[in-house]
Amino acid sequence: MRWNLPNSRVPEAWFNVVPHLPAPLEPPLHPGTREPVGPDDLAPLFPMALIAQEVSADPWIDVPGAVLDVLKLWRPTPLVRASRLEEALGTPARIYYKDESVSPAGSHKPNTAVPQAFFNKLEGVERLTTETGAGQWGSALCFATALFGQECKVYMVRASYNQKPYRRVMMETWGGSVVPSPVDDPEHPGSLGTAISDAVRDAATREDTHYSLGSVLNHVLLHQTVIGLEAKEQLAMAGEERPDIVIGCCGGGSNLGGIALPFVPDPEVELLAVEPASCPTLTEGRYEYDFGDTAGMTPLLSMYTLGHDFIPPSIHAGGLRYHGDAPIICNLVKHGRMRATAYPQGKVFEAAVQFARSQGTIPAPETSHAIRAVIDEALAAKEDGRPKVILFNYSGHGLLDLSAYDDHLHGRLIDA
Amino acid sequence: MRWNLPNSRVPEAWFNVVPHLPAPLEPPLHPGTREPVGPDDLAPLFPMALIAQEVSADPWIDVPGAVLDVLKLWRPTPLVRASRLEEALGTPARIYYKDESVSPAGSHKPNTAVPQAFFNKLEGVERLTTETGAGQWGSALCFATALFGQECKVYMVRASYNQKPYRRVMMETWGGSVVPSPVDDPEHPGSLGTAISDAVRDAATREDTHYSLGSVLNHVLLHQTVIGLEAKEQLAMAGEERPDIVIGCCGGGSNLGGIALPFVPDPEVELLAVEPASCPTLTEGRYEYDFGDTAGMTPLLSMYTLGHDFIPPSIHAGGLRYHGDAPIICNLVKHGRMRATAYPQGKVFEAAVQFARSQGTIPAPETSHAIRAVIDEALAAKEDGRPKVILFNYSGHGLLDLSAYDDHLHGRLIDA
Repeated sequence: MRWNLPNSRVPEAWFNVVPHLPAPLEPPLHPGTREPVGPDDLAPLFPMALIAQEVSADPWIDVPGAVLDVLKLWRPTPLVRASRLEEALGTPARIYYKDESVSPAGSHKPNTAVPQAFFNKLEGVERLTTETGAGQWGSALCFATALFGQECKVYMVRASYNQKPYRRVMMETWGGSVVPSPVDDPEHPGSLGTAISDAVRDAATREDTHYSLGSVLNHVLLHQTVIGLEAKEQLAMAGEERPDIVIGCCGGGSNLGGIALPFVPDPEVELLAVEPASCPTLTEGRYEYDFGDTAGMTPLLSMYTLGHDFIPPSIHAGGLRYHGDAPIICNLVKHGRMRATAYPQGKVFEAAVQFARSQGTIPAPETSHAIRAVIDEALAAKEDGRPKVILFNYSGHGLLDLSAYDDHLHGRLIDA
Repeated sequence: MRWNLPNSRVPEAWFNVVPHLPAPLEPPLHPGTREPVGPDDLAPLFPMALIAQEVSADPWIDVPGAVLDVLKLWRPTPLVRASRLEEALGTPARIYYKDESVSPAGSHKPNTAVPQAFFNKLEGVERLTTETGAGQWGSALCFATALFGQECKVYMVRASYNQKPYRRVMMETWGGSVVPSPVDDPEHPGSLGTAISDAVRDAATREDTHYSLGSVLNHVLLHQTVIGLEAKEQLAMAGEERPDIVIGCCGGGSNLGGIALPFVPDPEVELLAVEPASCPTLTEGRYEYDFGDTAGMTPLLSMYTLGHDFIPPSIHAGGLRYHGDAPIICNLVKHGRMRATAYPQGKVFEAAVQFARSQGTIPAPETSHAIRAVIDEALAAKEDGRPKVILFNYSGHGLLDLSAYDDHLHGRLIDA
């Protein structure tokens, strides 16, 4: 069963979780002075509208009409009951998922790429730069800038640039320009750190250019709350009062935040973050101020971190290989409002294949972390004989990650 | 704008166009005797329920509940108004498309894979074989057999097997087994002809196995009519009395038939088939009896054909490289109820990129043939100042065909 909403039900305001957090957010600090950063520090990189959202305490923030018009190309996304998975597991749990894979770029990322492109356009910025690892975020931003007629330059980790040509082609099809990073050393395989440095340097040194980030920051999670807001309305259509638990995978925190934040005010709803065992930020990191990037160029954020120089093993869920996490997510975990768990990728791909063979669609490796946890929760509910209501975010499809499935099916996966 | 229908509106009966054809269909002939084939000739390969559908003159044929249950995983598919494309073209035409790319396999093919797997299951057949070229059909059948717990063996054209590993991995993720064809000559690049021979030989020599075909036959087009039936209801929701023209790309004819056949009885609706200039079956073929396969093993079909030994150039729209066409489609063209046109692939990819940069999604190379014709119709409507209503079938996404876009964007496309 699927519950669709008409175009007219795309949320017209984003939900700001800040007033509902268990403790105040600690401010980002300037990397040089270690004093709280002000709007002027951020102005060379971001438009004022996004800087204002970043620090806003307003409970709701309006979605501009031009953003709504683009979101309506694929939103509202369907809420789906995973009845065949329930049947395969023999569980009394009722499993629902929000299908964010239906966007043009194949994931939840365009939910923030579109408003970021728009607010830049509004301030006359016709060129954006960004970094991309596996390519999900870079393709979302190229899609968004194509629709607003802006230029987009993507610095792609050189190893991915060489190994994953399909993501590069996707970005070029939308008119984006993609170069391997680091730009100054053609022998270097690159990392998210080098790519951020390249993208920030480009934006900081050109008057006509801003920089765009796909996760971690408050305004990014804010834009993603359309997911949870729609899910609430659709669960009501399905006759559910509330989910008992909301589950999402967590790399920087944007898809998890998108589905979970609107449920924060309801203490009856449990929230669960799922991360890879090879990059266990929330489950094994220290809670402290750290840089957002490897090179130490960004402001310091208060968050769980494995250290900004931590290099995670090269697992297939490239979108989850981040040393830190969104300050909002870390705040919720630190103060007990959200739980976190970690899985090695072998168990994750077992869950992914079980999902594909029962529900039919092939999930992204990142999304499959959430699915692993969902299956374990559903099996626990079977033990307890309890008809638990589980909601999770199907954050993206795996059609551009099939080589990972190939490794799994043919015993070549490193079980990190 | 998108128009969704609830799960309950998946059509519960298929529309049989046979009673509405301008002339009776000519029967298939036995390849040996050249006499009309009977059910017994087909029984080693197909279940009786499908053989009955193949020759049925009933106006409607019920969709079994178990088939509906699976179709509801992604159906009804959305009807979308391509407003941004209209704007980019400055046309008064209103362009609508049926988005069949949302299926788990990414195209319209599962609409027939599911009932074919089901009717075989019903007769106790636990193993199916088929051929696949680029892989769209093979992946649809592996998806369907996964959900009914059957085995599926796919003979994949060796050149594709080596060049397109992602489609193979997709089939394996659903539990299918995929081998390169021809099986007996590892140096041979293979063709659809060799793969059909391998798949038919396998099915004909094993008691427990049937063969499954993804296009051309009457029962395949029948199963696809859910597309046009839903579109009719959704156009009414959008306030349109009828489309002025219905457009689909045509390789074997199944996606075109799916959207067009329910409109055959309405003489006000123009029907247009779009094929590649490099394989111009309807526009340049002869209307005569010919074999369905290259090797001459199948019954002879009455159709337009370029000759069963015609080998089309290796264009990117692999799904349109077929020497013949569905007898139902040929009947409509022969008797003037449907028009046909052909385009070279360079103009097709220009249209595809224009679509991606205005509407956001990246179409399959096959689908892009329809889009080329849609754009030309919309531009003609602009010339005439006429608000023509255009409906087309967005038969699949291009996410596993991005290398074709790479060739186009970097000037490496052969404009055949």
